[in-house]
Amino acid sequence: MRGLNHPAIEGIDLVTVLAALGDPVRLGIVAELADGAEHPCVAFDFGITAASMSHHFRVLREAGLTRTRQEGRHRRLTLRRAELDRRFPGLLAPLLAAARDRATHRT
Amino acid sequence: MRGLNHPAIEGIDLVTVLAALGDPVRLGIVAELADGAEHPCVAFDFGITAASMSHHFRVLREAGLTRTRQEGRHRRLTLRRAELDRRFPGLLAPLLAAARDRATHRT
Repeated sequence: MRGLNHPAIEGIDLVTVLAALGDPVRLGIVAELADGAEHPCVAFDFGITAASMSHHFRVLREAGLTRTRQEGRHRRLTLRRAELDRRFPGLLAPLLAAARDRATHRT
Repeated sequence: MRGLNHPAIEGIDLVTVLAALGDPVRLGIVAELADGAEHPCVAFDFGITAASMSHHFRVLREAGLTRTRQEGRHRRLTLRRAELDRRFPGLLAPLLAAARDRATHRT
C-alpha cells in the first residue's frame, strides 16, 4: 500500500502553499473543501482525467493543505483548516472567501 | 520604448496572483514592498541575474500585484495595495505578514 505523506504543519513553507493554490483546479478543490466537510475524492468534477485529479490531490496534500483519509478503496479529503490557521494566522478566511467567490462566478 | 502593461484590477484572477506569489524571489520582492514605499528595482538583491529579476518583476506586474514607474533609466516599484485590498478584501494583510515573517526567518 502506498503511504500518504502529510507534512508537519510547522515545516510548511508559504511559497509551497501559494504555488499549490496558484492553479485553477487546485484552488477549486480547496474552495469546495472550505465548507469544512470531508469530501470523497471521486466527488470532485473538473472535467479532467482521474490521473490529473490524482496529481492535484497529491500536490495539495504535500503542500500541507489537505488531509487524505483512505477508507477501503476510496479516499476522502479535508482541509487542514485549524492547523493552517495556526501556521498562517488570518490568511485562510479571506483566501477561501476569494476562492469561493471565484468558483461561484465561473460555474 | 517598451510599454509597461498594468492590468485593470477588476480583471485580475486570484489564481494568477497566487501563482505569481508562489515563488521565493517574487514573494520576497512583495514582502519588501509591503512597507508601502516605492523601491528602485536595482535595490532588490536576491543573488540572481538582472535578467532573472526582470522576469520576476514582469510576472508581478502582469499579475496586477505591482506598479512599475519608469523614471529616466530607472524603474521603481510599488505594491498596488489599495486596489488589491478592494479586489480581494482582507487577503493582503495576513499574506504580507506571513511573507515578511518568512523573509525574516530566512535572511
